[in-house]
Amino acid sequence: MARLEVTLNRVDDTFHFVGENPQGIQVHLDDATSRPDGVGLGMSPMQLLLISLGGCSGVDLASILGKGRQKVDALRIEVRGDKPDGVAPSLFNAVHVTFRVDGEVDPDRVKRAVDLSLGKYCSVSKTLEPTATITATYVVNGTAYEWEPAG
Amino acid sequence: MARLEVTLNRVDDTFHFVGENPQGIQVHLDDATSRPDGVGLGMSPMQLLLISLGGCSGVDLASILGKGRQKVDALRIEVRGDKPDGVAPSLFNAVHVTFRVDGEVDPDRVKRAVDLSLGKYCSVSKTLEPTATITATYVVNGTAYEWEPAG
Repeated sequence: MARLEVTLNRVDDTFHFVGENPQGIQVHLDDATSRPDGVGLGMSPMQLLLISLGGCSGVDLASILGKGRQKVDALRIEVRGDKPDGVAPSLFNAVHVTFRVDGEVDPDRVKRAVDLSLGKYCSVSKTLEPTATITATYVVNGTAYEWEPAG
Repeated sequence: MARLEVTLNRVDDTFHFVGENPQGIQVHLDDATSRPDGVGLGMSPMQLLLISLGGCSGVDLASILGKGRQKVDALRIEVRGDKPDGVAPSLFNAVHVTFRVDGEVDPDRVKRAVDLSLGKYCSVSKTLEPTATITATYVVNGTAYEWEPAG
């Protein structure tokens, strides 16, 4: 069993929180909807959930493509989540991940890496799966391919 | 329908990614397990998932206690997640949230706020619920109470 621990401290009398892991890495959270200008001083918790998914699958891709001796020059991930408006709770029911890979990279290898990450290994993806449909696009040197989960 | 969008860019040839929301707020992610010293330059994606939960329920508590005219001097949230070791995927199967509230605050009001957040409103909590058992403790001015989900 592995145990992960994090802490969050509220800043003053606001909805702004500072989250921290045991190594002292910080992230700012805020509820932008509570502010008159709609601009928060941090991520919303649900944005952070999408970033968690992008990071999880991003590390998988970096690892799998590296082991496959693909020369990746750049890797960018865009994550989009749709959720119902005006209700609480409001869970993502559809999440779409776009992987943009540049370099001397075989598109079939990228497809396989996405298969392994979203289809098999990524813990955040598997956590979201019971409540959200997850789809993906991978874009290799500017050419886009729709990803279909393996059989 | 509300749509949230975030992006992540890989830093050089590493497992370090910078995540960003449309307002330009950033968070650093990394896979510490890949580093010889075990110290990453960012959060792990699964740590970030716990922070997302803590932020979601933290905003709920700040909001509910504020509306209830409780005078909260400090609010700190600790989130702990247990997951199996050495397998992929490795989802949290148990998550425990500790809410530490100081101020002129009625413990029954804090209990009610935790009921409403974890039991009802918090979207991240509801996303984790199919795969994790979520428990909580609330500590008011140093006195700890175990939280039991309402009926």
